[in-house]
Amino acid sequence: MTTPNLTIYEHKGFPNPERIRIAFAEKGLLDSVQFRQVDVLKGEHRTDEFLGKNPSGLVPILELEDGTVISECSAIIDYVDHLTGERELTGKTPQERGVIGMMQRRVESGLLEAVGTYFHVATDGLGPDLERVHNKEWGNMQRERALATMHYLDDVLKSQAYIAGDRFTDADITAIAGLKFAAFAKIDIPANLTALKEWYDRVQKRPSLNN
Amino acid sequence: MTTPNLTIYEHKGFPNPERIRIAFAEKGLLDSVQFRQVDVLKGEHRTDEFLGKNPSGLVPILELEDGTVISECSAIIDYVDHLTGERELTGKTPQERGVIGMMQRRVESGLLEAVGTYFHVATDGLGPDLERVHNKEWGNMQRERALATMHYLDDVLKSQAYIAGDRFTDADITAIAGLKFAAFAKIDIPANLTALKEWYDRVQKRPSLNN
Repeated sequence: MTTPNLTIYEHKGFPNPERIRIAFAEKGLLDSVQFRQVDVLKGEHRTDEFLGKNPSGLVPILELEDGTVISECSAIIDYVDHLTGERELTGKTPQERGVIGMMQRRVESGLLEAVGTYFHVATDGLGPDLERVHNKEWGNMQRERALATMHYLDDVLKSQAYIAGDRFTDADITAIAGLKFAAFAKIDIPANLTALKEWYDRVQKRPSLNN
Repeated sequence: MTTPNLTIYEHKGFPNPERIRIAFAEKGLLDSVQFRQVDVLKGEHRTDEFLGKNPSGLVPILELEDGTVISECSAIIDYVDHLTGERELTGKTPQERGVIGMMQRRVESGLLEAVGTYFHVATDGLGPDLERVHNKEWGNMQRERALATMHYLDDVLKSQAYIAGDRFTDADITAIAGLKFAAFAKIDIPANLTALKEWYDRVQKRPSLNN
């Protein structure tokens, strides 16, 4: 395979960029990517230049050689998973893809986005210069939703090794980013969710998480 | 192809079930599906039986012959798009898939989910027996977000025939459901968004929307 010339705009260490780094590492394609930093804490994601690339103003984005920009982590990961290998992350068969896609979206919505909303609208978030919306009631409800999703995932992981079945997929990547964000936002995994904690300890050891 | 034996649980006419009907019709697979109605207005989506199939309690879900349940419309549509044909709805090449996936998620989040949140938490929604959460401030902000997405889509459609490029895809399906829900929730398409209106009139004529 000729490796394409790819650029990722990110804020390193943030939850969504982390998803992309793990996915590229899992696919063995980290070396074919040039990373450019967008300092969200300085508001660089709200410059005209960046909004021209991604009107929703979110990092990360992937820029292809021809200038095409792909945003939304699920779309970037689907892209890279089709570049090489056997679609290990998003699924080989229709049924496998359906189950992985379902679990990915369930975790994205119920954990990662829920934590993000709590963090941005019910806590000080990234500080008064960047946070424009406050809504404690809504944010706290999303915190409860994130905790409910952790309980759900614990149940799932009692009977299977990974979130969408018996191997590591995109759904695990989203859950890792969600739990990392939850820890940052001081939403701890409840002590009794031992299956979730065991899974989390286990996936932390993957080389793709230690780049 | 041997057509699998598929069951869809839905509330006919609701925005998300509509996405699945359009997708199956586009793929020519509507006849291989048995539809079962879940009367959301009577709370049938909150019975133990249904929650056993889908813990998030949302319709539609797709049940396969072996009992596997797939929820989340994006996952169901990815499944059916891989069953037959050439992945017309979700994209053939990695790049096409990335762009379609991005646009689908942008429309899902910024239009369909935004309208849904406005409808459920800032209006009477489905009535006092079903609506448990009220948050006018958050809901009204989502209404503004839906309108901003309509403006964005109008811009996109000034230079291309469909939302993710030059042909009909999953991103168009999500936008159709979003605009239908918006009309139901009395969020009109602003009169000056002529490219969006022209696209909407045009896609309404597709046979897949008239089953």
